[in-house]
Amino acid sequence: MEASTFVLFGATGDLAKRKIYPALYNLYVDGKFSTPFSVIGLGRRELSNETFRAQVLQSLHSFSRRAALDSLQLQAFLQGFEYSVLDVGHPEDYTKLLKHVREREALLGLPENRMFYLSVGPEFFEPIAANIQASGLGDTLGWKRLIIEKPFGRDLKSARALNTSLTEAFKEEEIFRIDHYLGKPMVQNLEVLKYSNPVLRALWQNRYIANVQITASETVGVEERAGYYDKSGALRDMFQNHMLQLLMMTAMQLPKGSTPEEVRSKKKHVVKSLRPLIKEDVALNVVRGQYTPGEVEGRAVAGYTSEPGIDRSSQTETFIAARLWIDDPLWNEVPIYIRTGKRMKQKSTRIVIEFKEPFNDSHNKNKGDHTPNLLIIEISPDEAITLQLNTKDPQQHGELTSVHANYQSGSSSDVPEAYENLIFDALRGDATFFAHWDEVELSWQWVQPILEASEEGLLPLQAYRSGSHGPDGSAALLGGTEWWLDSEDKTNEAAPSVPDAPAIIRTGA
Amino acid sequence: MEASTFVLFGATGDLAKRKIYPALYNLYVDGKFSTPFSVIGLGRRELSNETFRAQVLQSLHSFSRRAALDSLQLQAFLQGFEYSVLDVGHPEDYTKLLKHVREREALLGLPENRMFYLSVGPEFFEPIAANIQASGLGDTLGWKRLIIEKPFGRDLKSARALNTSLTEAFKEEEIFRIDHYLGKPMVQNLEVLKYSNPVLRALWQNRYIANVQITASETVGVEERAGYYDKSGALRDMFQNHMLQLLMMTAMQLPKGSTPEEVRSKKKHVVKSLRPLIKEDVALNVVRGQYTPGEVEGRAVAGYTSEPGIDRSSQTETFIAARLWIDDPLWNEVPIYIRTGKRMKQKSTRIVIEFKEPFNDSHNKNKGDHTPNLLIIEISPDEAITLQLNTKDPQQHGELTSVHANYQSGSSSDVPEAYENLIFDALRGDATFFAHWDEVELSWQWVQPILEASEEGLLPLQAYRSGSHGPDGSAALLGGTEWWLDSEDKTNEAAPSVPDAPAIIRTGA
Repeated sequence: MEASTFVLFGATGDLAKRKIYPALYNLYVDGKFSTPFSVIGLGRRELSNETFRAQVLQSLHSFSRRAALDSLQLQAFLQGFEYSVLDVGHPEDYTKLLKHVREREALLGLPENRMFYLSVGPEFFEPIAANIQASGLGDTLGWKRLIIEKPFGRDLKSARALNTSLTEAFKEEEIFRIDHYLGKPMVQNLEVLKYSNPVLRALWQNRYIANVQITASETVGVEERAGYYDKSGALRDMFQNHMLQLLMMTAMQLPKGSTPEEVRSKKKHVVKSLRPLIKEDVALNVVRGQYTPGEVEGRAVAGYTSEPGIDRSSQTETFIAARLWIDDPLWNEVPIYIRTGKRMKQKSTRIVIEFKEPFNDSHNKNKGDHTPNLLIIEISPDEAITLQLNTKDPQQHGELTSVHANYQSGSSSDVPEAYENLIFDALRGDATFFAHWDEVELSWQWVQPILEASEEGLLPLQAYRSGSHGPDGSAALLGGTEWWLDSEDKTNEAAPSVPDAPAIIRTGA
Repeated sequence: MEASTFVLFGATGDLAKRKIYPALYNLYVDGKFSTPFSVIGLGRRELSNETFRAQVLQSLHSFSRRAALDSLQLQAFLQGFEYSVLDVGHPEDYTKLLKHVREREALLGLPENRMFYLSVGPEFFEPIAANIQASGLGDTLGWKRLIIEKPFGRDLKSARALNTSLTEAFKEEEIFRIDHYLGKPMVQNLEVLKYSNPVLRALWQNRYIANVQITASETVGVEERAGYYDKSGALRDMFQNHMLQLLMMTAMQLPKGSTPEEVRSKKKHVVKSLRPLIKEDVALNVVRGQYTPGEVEGRAVAGYTSEPGIDRSSQTETFIAARLWIDDPLWNEVPIYIRTGKRMKQKSTRIVIEFKEPFNDSHNKNKGDHTPNLLIIEISPDEAITLQLNTKDPQQHGELTSVHANYQSGSSSDVPEAYENLIFDALRGDATFFAHWDEVELSWQWVQPILEASEEGLLPLQAYRSGSHGPDGSAALLGGTEWWLDSEDKTNEAAPSVPDAPAIIRTGA
């Protein structure tokens, strides 16, 4: 990997402190950062380099997954950080920034590779990109790249407008759109799981799969983000981006190789093959919900419209569930169920593959006694792969029981976080786990009828109690089966009557 | 289940004490025995009922899986036992026995259902069966059944002769041939596993399976059984019966229902479809071995020919491995590897299904990095189902690693032992897990060329060190792959670096 300058807009912001600095530090400690190492932080306030470095240090102490920080290494790391004041709307500040960048490049002998990370509100994407272009910051002898985060627009039209203006300053292959769900280790594992396991590969087809369920449920409410969230809602905040990305990663056909181009092409194929919704039929396939007062994790909580900063008559959805179909031979007649919501009973992001029942079981005396086979891929908060099988209960002659063959990953402090994976990939120029414009556009296109139906009152908001599994309509959507694992009680799983089995990780052969 | 009289020949023998009495007791405690409960024990020595009951009690204290014995229940149980002296060659003793049985039937109001359990040497099977017939013991108004244990002959001819004489006294459906491997809970689970799990059912075909490996390795040597074993060897003692039964259970096609008749018909189909060996080719497909001095579980042990009671020039095999083919579309081109031996490195009975590598992996950059997918069914000493998958090592960017999704059964003291399952089934008249004569005959038929090749010196004995995985020829038989899990070090598996994952058992839905 070539050395570069990391130019961070929004260097005093929350995301920088919580995610970006710890990620940079961990990459540095793991030797994944090319040296010399140079970060230029930008913010509206005047800060000395020393104060800035102290803030970075503070963020590492608070948020790094590594508990023990080596002080020598830490000193070297912090020396790579400098600060410049910048008002995103002032062109002269970009000229000063260019001077600063060039001085550091000269001093450190860095090639003119520049990574621009926009950790700022979406309203600043366009002026920053334009000023990078206008100031000459983007005229480099090496590469230049732009990292941005959602939201990429708030509907199809605004997303297209944003993209058009960004592409005046950066080419598509220079834009790295972070969807941090794509940085999660288990999501990155999805491709490998299917790819390197003939057993899963054989099963990953509509002949064997009854349906796919993708859940991202949160126990938190709207928290500090009322202003943003009430204008956005679950559809824009979670569904259009994270949930559809998870769907693409789950459903994409196995590429022969795994070049980023092939992965993107397969992902695009999935979202392009989604059967379009007609605005008038949206209510048959989509459920919108909003939480009412209830109890979450043993604590009484307020309803959405009583949250600080939320309009008392808000019609914003905090829950959305949808049934989707992929019009592709591989997924023919396999419904995909997706749901995401706040103030749900459990915090869990997971993909569940429900397999079909045996074909010719007309004489099956055990019929109906057993649950379907399930492949459960838990993404967070725990990472695990579970295959649920039916087996004979050895203590009850002939009765069937379900067993979970379960694998859980190692200690989380050893596992790189999403931002580490993603920043590392962007620095290497590997776009596999970033959202391509085509994916973003096609996702908005699929979502657009839902936005319109909501606005036109065709998709009424359903109330659900905080601490529940969402509105009743969500279960009804499944018509016949159920949202698997909703009834799981995590405390029961750890009960002492259950034997422990070791899950063993080791390198092959 | 109807009440019956349990007539036990060999009531003072080792098997009765170790296995049969504990099994009867556990069935009694579990309420699986019809009352009134009546056992008549037979032996050559004169014993009072009281002494006999004391022996039964002693065996329960020594060998029952249940640690705590309830004294009231125990008293009631022991009252069911009476003793008669009997010399198997004295017809008048059978007349006395008939009188005894009838007295008990009258006293207890028992229907004339009589279970004759022959826990005696095979040389006594024929005279006992003939005398049961001649004495009138077998003329019952209810049912009569015969339970016998291996060996059923020592070659095809002697097995047929034995069967012919047995069937003069008992019909085939009255004969319950115990192969105690068929009583093991995980073996009984095999049918259910395939049957009730569409996922396994989909994979259980030659399209996906590369090969099947069935291992029964022991760490013990010939122990107290020198006289019997040296005349028998691994082929007769283990392979012809237990190993071929495991093969039948593994390979049989899924029956639509699961009636005993259907299971038997499928098992028979498997053994009938085994590609016959030609005597001259036996050495290409079979490896015979004999253990030499070595070290087992940290202890130096003698070679086979230095064992007490073994001839110094014995050519008896203590190890046998074979490659078999099933000429059936389902198993076309899937080699089945079977091996069993004494004084091996580990004590383990297991079935490993090795799955084929991905089909179109010509561009697979990970090719060769990973181990095949394996389904591991551990039968003893532990029971477990493990699916070995490849996954991305979250700590090593992009590297592949193997994970074991593992299920282990509950505490072994709660799980019925093989003899409990089998005696219960015989009392109910369910022959699913017993060896039918057709299976026995066809097994001997397949094995016969190996017996002949051995006798004619066409299959030389290979030496293997005690504590090894058998002779080198055994690995060579596999041509390309390996005997999976041989390299497993059980102590490493429990190392603290390995995370624990819960395996959860619960009833369906």
